[in-house]
Amino acid sequence: MKDNKKIAASDLKPFCIRILEKIGVPKRKAVILADSLVMASLRGVDTHGIAKLPIYVKKVRKGLIDVDSEMEVVKESASTLLIDGHNGIGQVIGSDTMNICIKKAKQQGMVIAGVRNSNHFGACAYYAMMPLEHNMIGFALSNAPATMAPWGAKKAYLGTNPFAVAVPTGIDTPFVIDMATSKVAQSNIIQAAEKNEKIPKDWAIDSQGNPTQDPEEALEGAILPMAEAKGYIISLLIDVLCGILTGASFGNHMPKLYWDFSEPQNTGHVFGAIKVDNFIPYKEFIKRMSQEIKELKNLPTADGFSEVYLPGEIERNQREKREKEGIPVGPGLLKRLKELSKDLCVEFSLGGN
Amino acid sequence: MKDNKKIAASDLKPFCIRILEKIGVPKRKAVILADSLVMASLRGVDTHGIAKLPIYVKKVRKGLIDVDSEMEVVKESASTLLIDGHNGIGQVIGSDTMNICIKKAKQQGMVIAGVRNSNHFGACAYYAMMPLEHNMIGFALSNAPATMAPWGAKKAYLGTNPFAVAVPTGIDTPFVIDMATSKVAQSNIIQAAEKNEKIPKDWAIDSQGNPTQDPEEALEGAILPMAEAKGYIISLLIDVLCGILTGASFGNHMPKLYWDFSEPQNTGHVFGAIKVDNFIPYKEFIKRMSQEIKELKNLPTADGFSEVYLPGEIERNQREKREKEGIPVGPGLLKRLKELSKDLCVEFSLGGN
Repeated sequence: MKDNKKIAASDLKPFCIRILEKIGVPKRKAVILADSLVMASLRGVDTHGIAKLPIYVKKVRKGLIDVDSEMEVVKESASTLLIDGHNGIGQVIGSDTMNICIKKAKQQGMVIAGVRNSNHFGACAYYAMMPLEHNMIGFALSNAPATMAPWGAKKAYLGTNPFAVAVPTGIDTPFVIDMATSKVAQSNIIQAAEKNEKIPKDWAIDSQGNPTQDPEEALEGAILPMAEAKGYIISLLIDVLCGILTGASFGNHMPKLYWDFSEPQNTGHVFGAIKVDNFIPYKEFIKRMSQEIKELKNLPTADGFSEVYLPGEIERNQREKREKEGIPVGPGLLKRLKELSKDLCVEFSLGGN
Repeated sequence: MKDNKKIAASDLKPFCIRILEKIGVPKRKAVILADSLVMASLRGVDTHGIAKLPIYVKKVRKGLIDVDSEMEVVKESASTLLIDGHNGIGQVIGSDTMNICIKKAKQQGMVIAGVRNSNHFGACAYYAMMPLEHNMIGFALSNAPATMAPWGAKKAYLGTNPFAVAVPTGIDTPFVIDMATSKVAQSNIIQAAEKNEKIPKDWAIDSQGNPTQDPEEALEGAILPMAEAKGYIISLLIDVLCGILTGASFGNHMPKLYWDFSEPQNTGHVFGAIKVDNFIPYKEFIKRMSQEIKELKNLPTADGFSEVYLPGEIERNQREKREKEGIPVGPGLLKRLKELSKDLCVEFSLGGN
């Protein structure tokens, strides 16, 4: 990765904000979207970081995302919310919804919010982590365009439907799960295609439903679920909760993020927050978490492993490193960001080392 | 399986109840426990069906499960419950807790209950399915004794921590997920050992942490998580929610069901119910579910598959078959049930064909 330029988060964020404001995104929303992109890049989740800026800009400029609309609470009870995103920016809807969840959970202990008419919202972990500082467990789920074949089928019908859960630990290492329900993220296959490399034979099938090691064929076919049938049904459950239950798109009815500009995606999400104190006292919870973490880290490691990692620990390490050294931006992405700024007459201000 | 005797559910249930009453289980509780065991057997989940009767009886007779204790609501809010099972029967605690969840969810929309000081509660699906007839989505999670190695570790620390989610469909085929977070259930390894067969090399490690195909070595070592690191962190999350958050046992601190009679298990569970009507109207939900189910069933199947199955469909088919033909009981289990009835001076009344 010697061709990567390293750019400070403190340079990237204002750059993103300027680009977004230039295409009409109100300041408050531009800040949220930029923050979520830079946070994903800092945590090493490059596929959901600033690499996503160009496609979001394209969607907005084609009128497929309404940057001015405000989401609406359609239905509300003590513990539930149904929210219509009115085709706003996914990250803003996600962040605003989670803030309501946190506020309500302070009173009620547990809140779940279903969202429809949203858009791609980036990395789930961003929202799941918001309740942490309120001594709450957070979670976020989303459905996505169909790229994955149900177990036993030879065509894509479900998305790689990801979910995230974050749990407070009281220590520097947070507990953050964020995973797609597919064998691998689609970006791994795209990367293999760019490098002209074969992919393992259990990752994907071609358009005829046959296992393939050719990434190009895989992209025209479908990704396979993680853990065979188990990944399929977890992905299906996420589609049911995010899509069916909220009134959003479901199954193979959601337009693809990169390849379909015919209509808005009507993405569905589910968010939630659980106040720890409604169960055992927070202090006791933290003490018990610390014990479990310590015991996990002290386990003897298997051959080929130097450490047992906690969920989110690798991302925490990346964040620490990238906060010091900057975020590596490859030549391809750098070129696209330059073009974007030129196209929008925004000064290209990304320094680096 | 020609040596299997087929026994009607209507014979098995009263037999279980008589055995349980004989060891002092109050009628109401004996009925719940028997019902949950027979239901698992009907659904083809034999490992969690009547095969579990002898070990429960043994635990009760050794004073490790208190059949007379009643669970207690320790903390309550509009949307949350913390319950102390006071070392009662897991199935009764599960069933009673889910009934409270359903009642509260009717008012609030969504309820989550954490349970501590419980015991092995059989198949999660039993509880997750209870809210279905109330037009609700149900879920149930449990932690379990450590038999699984975290990803990268060479020793067991987590249980095969299972979870179940049931979603109403409005049609004869329910949507029921019930899965362990391990590569396979421990019973598959026990079965291989009994048959003197090798196991696939990615199922388990031996006591030294090396991959093994010898089921005996695997039983002394640890099962591996499903989907590698992903299964590990889902299992860990279930341990955090069921164990840490409730005050129950966690990590490798829970006595093993079959091999440790030193103290009660202090198992932890989480249950929940979500009222569909708090999101979109139930009728619309069912219409959308039907469409998704129809589209899934109409997908072209991959080579070697005759059908794309919905979660729980195979179990539904088994139930239909076994309700007609009876529940197959192998000679080993039949012998143990006979011994049990002789030992307790309960008439052995299991007819068959």
